[in-house]
Amino acid sequence: MSSPAIDFARSQSARFLDELKALLRIPSVSTLPEHQGDVRRVAELLAAELTRIGMEHVEIIETGGHPLVYADWLHAAGKPTCLCYGHYDVQPPDPLDEWLTPPFEPTERNGNLYARGAVDDKGQMYMHLKALESLFSTGNGKLPLNVRVILEGEEEVGGESIARFVREHPERLKADFALVSDTEMFAPDLPTLCVGLRGMIYTEIEVRGARTDLHSGMYGGAVPNPFVALAQIIAQLKDKDGRILIPGFYDAIQPPSQDELRAWQALPFNEEHYRATEVGSPELTGEPGYSVLERTWARPTLDVHGMPGGYTGAGAKTVIPAKAVAKVSMRLVPDMTTDHTFALYKSFVESLKPAGVELEVRLIHSGDAIVIGTDNPYIRAATQALRSVWGKETVFIRSGGSIPIVGDFERHLQIPTVMMGFGLPDDNLHAPNEKFHIANFHRGIESVVAFFEELGQ
Amino acid sequence: MSSPAIDFARSQSARFLDELKALLRIPSVSTLPEHQGDVRRVAELLAAELTRIGMEHVEIIETGGHPLVYADWLHAAGKPTCLCYGHYDVQPPDPLDEWLTPPFEPTERNGNLYARGAVDDKGQMYMHLKALESLFSTGNGKLPLNVRVILEGEEEVGGESIARFVREHPERLKADFALVSDTEMFAPDLPTLCVGLRGMIYTEIEVRGARTDLHSGMYGGAVPNPFVALAQIIAQLKDKDGRILIPGFYDAIQPPSQDELRAWQALPFNEEHYRATEVGSPELTGEPGYSVLERTWARPTLDVHGMPGGYTGAGAKTVIPAKAVAKVSMRLVPDMTTDHTFALYKSFVESLKPAGVELEVRLIHSGDAIVIGTDNPYIRAATQALRSVWGKETVFIRSGGSIPIVGDFERHLQIPTVMMGFGLPDDNLHAPNEKFHIANFHRGIESVVAFFEELGQ
Repeated sequence: MSSPAIDFARSQSARFLDELKALLRIPSVSTLPEHQGDVRRVAELLAAELTRIGMEHVEIIETGGHPLVYADWLHAAGKPTCLCYGHYDVQPPDPLDEWLTPPFEPTERNGNLYARGAVDDKGQMYMHLKALESLFSTGNGKLPLNVRVILEGEEEVGGESIARFVREHPERLKADFALVSDTEMFAPDLPTLCVGLRGMIYTEIEVRGARTDLHSGMYGGAVPNPFVALAQIIAQLKDKDGRILIPGFYDAIQPPSQDELRAWQALPFNEEHYRATEVGSPELTGEPGYSVLERTWARPTLDVHGMPGGYTGAGAKTVIPAKAVAKVSMRLVPDMTTDHTFALYKSFVESLKPAGVELEVRLIHSGDAIVIGTDNPYIRAATQALRSVWGKETVFIRSGGSIPIVGDFERHLQIPTVMMGFGLPDDNLHAPNEKFHIANFHRGIESVVAFFEELGQ
Repeated sequence: MSSPAIDFARSQSARFLDELKALLRIPSVSTLPEHQGDVRRVAELLAAELTRIGMEHVEIIETGGHPLVYADWLHAAGKPTCLCYGHYDVQPPDPLDEWLTPPFEPTERNGNLYARGAVDDKGQMYMHLKALESLFSTGNGKLPLNVRVILEGEEEVGGESIARFVREHPERLKADFALVSDTEMFAPDLPTLCVGLRGMIYTEIEVRGARTDLHSGMYGGAVPNPFVALAQIIAQLKDKDGRILIPGFYDAIQPPSQDELRAWQALPFNEEHYRATEVGSPELTGEPGYSVLERTWARPTLDVHGMPGGYTGAGAKTVIPAKAVAKVSMRLVPDMTTDHTFALYKSFVESLKPAGVELEVRLIHSGDAIVIGTDNPYIRAATQALRSVWGKETVFIRSGGSIPIVGDFERHLQIPTVMMGFGLPDDNLHAPNEKFHIANFHRGIESVVAFFEELGQ
């Protein structure tokens, strides 16, 4: 595959990578208040770059939280309009001591670029910008189709601001389809489109016992222990095989079609290889009777992410804490809804409250599950573009993760999303030593160029 | 009650309190490496004060950990020798935001002195020094009995160094009895001697699942969750009524005598008042069939103090942590032994290991339970002294807490300990807003003076 824009991208690959490294050096951790300035700095840098490459109406949109970055170029009369979405915020880097090189000092190793946000999502978001630059630079300052760009800085903290913007200003994002590059390829060199996402509800259970922290010697045996209470609750949310015990939890599920299940069975996937190379636990766990791909793509789950409270330092502190919290999330699949599932969960957790404590169940954020049809012109054009760049047929997968904005685009803009991602399964998303395979960064740019050229024909 | 030494103590009460405040301003938190210098600073200050008041052979004994402070005065021929023990280290002050005034800025409020370590144990330890000063100052530089002083800086982290010193150098601490002021009065103005302590084992259970932290969207449903595994384990350690389910756990227990139980029933204690004023939880919890005093003094317990791991910050981080830890301790009663109980616990926890994870059970520290007989001359003299100072009969109680050194004194020095403490039940030991009732500090000094005068007659 070759075109002036693709040739341009190849000739500029070293500069493109340097620019990405500069972005990755800024710790735009959206969940930590002390990084608020860093998040804004990245927004400003992206706005400047969008202006430089030729986008119009570039704007940093204030939200009350972290800002949105908007830009458009709408002069390709008669051609479709693409809404390019990406997020420039990143997950916290902890645990810091498990990084081989510092999370905010991008480092090349074995053909990969290691840094927090390398693949999720700064690297993949930046592919869009560099594809647009390549097209502008070789097209007399024009693009083959119309483009709007919307970038957010709150994806890792629930994406409330962009959700509100989409809901309240759908006319400003009017497009025929959206392009999101925040997913992964099923295997190296296997071009992949993601056509299904799990939803999620992220919650906190707070348990309060005594009014203040008490000495476990003086009071142990008479006073409720919030951690023991939480353990009793959590142990009743799932059975030992991993089945979730919340009454009604599984009722609304629409299983995948027989065609989809057959396609998944044909994918190059070996559960033991996955366990050994990606996971590393002694065994895999989860609902009996379902394959790993079904369990992670098409079945709901429940996980505990942390249990703040009490004493977590080194050595011994003999405290019965006044309160403790469990951070619990559930992943949802079609047609479970966030509101109904949270109501079922909350009422079940409340029914499990042990004696002697008070309990509060809080919803932190949520997003609906989604399945995208494969019979639309944008998915077809994407398949064609991927074939031309990668020389292989595209596989259609789902992702166990959640990208709530895709549901918002469907609901409020009535447009489908093409989820064209170039991460790899071992990219360590949300974990130490996150990386982006450098070749995928460059071929991702070429793929987006080819996709836009295909749609502009 | 009056004597020259008691009159002296009364005349110097303002200075004594100021000196205590200076001690409390130094954050000698033994569990936190960054406070190592502060712990040593307090040791040096106490050594200087022991020298100043007239003690001999004052020495800072290096241990590899925090130092011991030793002093003696052994010129009262024919009189008994008292070993005065205290600890000058304190618990960590967290959670900091619940302190009404800063933990290391001692503040007087409502007749109390608020500070970390006010009562546990800097304030009570300092009573001994001020009683000795009062006796030296009014006794021509002599004491009515022989005294050795040994102070440690590791009580809140397990007291390993003093335990080793007692074991390896019993001749350096040769005495007829020990005096420990690290317990509380049963009620305000009710003179109290503590004659029983629970033992304890403090442990950590570490559960490891995946090799690295994983994204709960991508992997949820296939990968073990260490917090869920810990919850399942903890939920099986105790039933809903608070009975511990470790096989054999209760087998070695010697219940209190009928006399002791009758005496406890006669104490001024109201469970509802205790719940409302000291605890503040909606209900009390614990083993059915036992009173609160039995449950906290004469029955073993199991508590969880914290569950480090995963994400504990604000908001949402969707991580399946590679590992999580539960800090679990048990309080033991006679004749349970630490070694045997830990072995029962470890093997039971290992038997509960859920599929998919690895598990490690670690012993952090331990101390045996102890019961002291009341039929010895030192307890009788203490009772007499307390009657003269407080004008009331002494009550004999146990404590739910653990003071492992009392067992070491019994085992290696073959001496009984008089546990004469002046804390109050609402002093917030190990919790925010720890305090010492200022009147008890002064009457505690008078009580120790009277006790030593009684023994020197």
